[in-house]
Amino acid sequence: MTDPTDAEAACFEAGIKFGTLYHQFAGTPLSLESAASLETAMEDAIENQPYCRAVAVEIQREKLEAALAEATADYTELTGRFLEVEIVVDDDDYEVVARMEMDGGYPLMQLESVRER
Amino acid sequence: MTDPTDAEAACFEAGIKFGTLYHQFAGTPLSLESAASLETAMEDAIENQPYCRAVAVEIQREKLEAALAEATADYTELTGRFLEVEIVVDDDDYEVVARMEMDGGYPLMQLESVRER
Amino acid sequence: MTDPTDAEAACFEAGIKFGTLYHQFAGTPLSLESAASLETAMEDAIENQPYCRAVAVEIQREKLEAALAEATADYTELTGRFLEVEIVVDDDDYEVVARMEMDGGYPLMQLESVRER
Amino acid sequence: MTDPTDAEAACFEAGIKFGTLYHQFAGTPLSLESAASLETAMEDAIENQPYCRAVAVEIQREKLEAALAEATADYTELTGRFLEVEIVVDDDDYEVVARMEMDGGYPLMQLESVRER
Repeated sequence: MTDPTDAEAACFEAGIKFGTLYHQFAGTPLSLESAASLETAMEDAIENQPYCRAVAVEIQREKLEAALAEATADYTELTGRFLEVEIVVDDDDYEVVARMEMDGGYPLMQLESVRER
Repeated sequence: MTDPTDAEAACFEAGIKFGTLYHQFAGTPLSLESAASLETAMEDAIENQPYCRAVAVEIQREKLEAALAEATADYTELTGRFLEVEIVVDDDDYEVVARMEMDGGYPLMQLESVRER
Repeated sequence: MTDPTDAEAACFEAGIKFGTLYHQFAGTPLSLESAASLETAMEDAIENQPYCRAVAVEIQREKLEAALAEATADYTELTGRFLEVEIVVDDDDYEVVARMEMDGGYPLMQLESVRER
Repeated sequence: MTDPTDAEAACFEAGIKFGTLYHQFAGTPLSLESAASLETAMEDAIENQPYCRAVAVEIQREKLEAALAEATADYTELTGRFLEVEIVVDDDDYEVVARMEMDGGYPLMQLESVRER
């Protein structure tokens, strides 16, 4: 057993941000009109968390349009199939970049890079 | 037993909006910097729901400042103690106005008026 | 304009419970193994709310099985397409029964009856 | 820049589980009667997630009792001040143990150990 390294702690922090972002906002009523304000609020909310330097949320408008075209209502709810997210976590020594995007119908969250500063 | 009246159905709809708003967004990381975008996103999201004509969300900045001054972190999470909300539901025949505000430490949601149009 | 009646207030309460139940728990990681404990927790949680006499949540196992058979992961997340819910609200004078079930791909919440006691 | 190590990826996964657990369930209506079923549902739900071997959730009953004694309602809502959580993540090569507990009024999530198997 070893104590966690600083890099591992930074990766743990990046994971927290992704779990937070997804499970806080999944289920939010969503339309083409409300997508932009939801993106901004998600970014601003998660950027409050410790060591979180930047959050970029994109609600894929063409996928949302396609889902609404099939639906009986003129709104739907936020799920991973509409989301692409990049989060940069930055403690004193390490910068971690992680992403979420759809992979085989499942919203996959993955580390992209871990960089010593 | 009687079938629900149109006015009762409109009140039921108003309740759905309040339960949605509160339980979708409670727990969101919140600071003075992110309060405005969260207010907007909450309003836009709930206005997507059926028969919902208007939603006004106010995150009480002075209460948020006071909570942050006591805390060890520079952000907190959204709970009812920071919120005042007014929702107007409007189906063809009835307009319902309902409000949420703190009452004795508890975020009380209440019907304010039911008006035939 | 008129003050809300007691029956209207009871219908508003029933709506709050539905909005709460759906938006608190939508997005929860869900499998055949975890469905029963989630049903119980949803019922017990919502029954805490004022005037809520009974909550019955059924996660439709055959729909869940079908969704998992199509997916690449062995779990999914709770959405309305898996849910049937009945809630009974009961203040001193009125009993309100409301239900949620899928209707044309949309989780429809509806008043079923309002009864003076 | 380096590719993430397997240990770092396991720590990222552990973080996702904590963010999910907290932000999915924060805000849930909670009483002494409903605490046990909520603990079980939280454990079962998070154990669905990839690489998650074990989740132990304890809602601190004495803190909940104290909060309810101060309140005007006979229930409250789940927040970090009531929670202690341990999560074990286990991919093929690494076992990560992480914990959440209150630290200075803030629900601190931390890596406890990272062990090569």
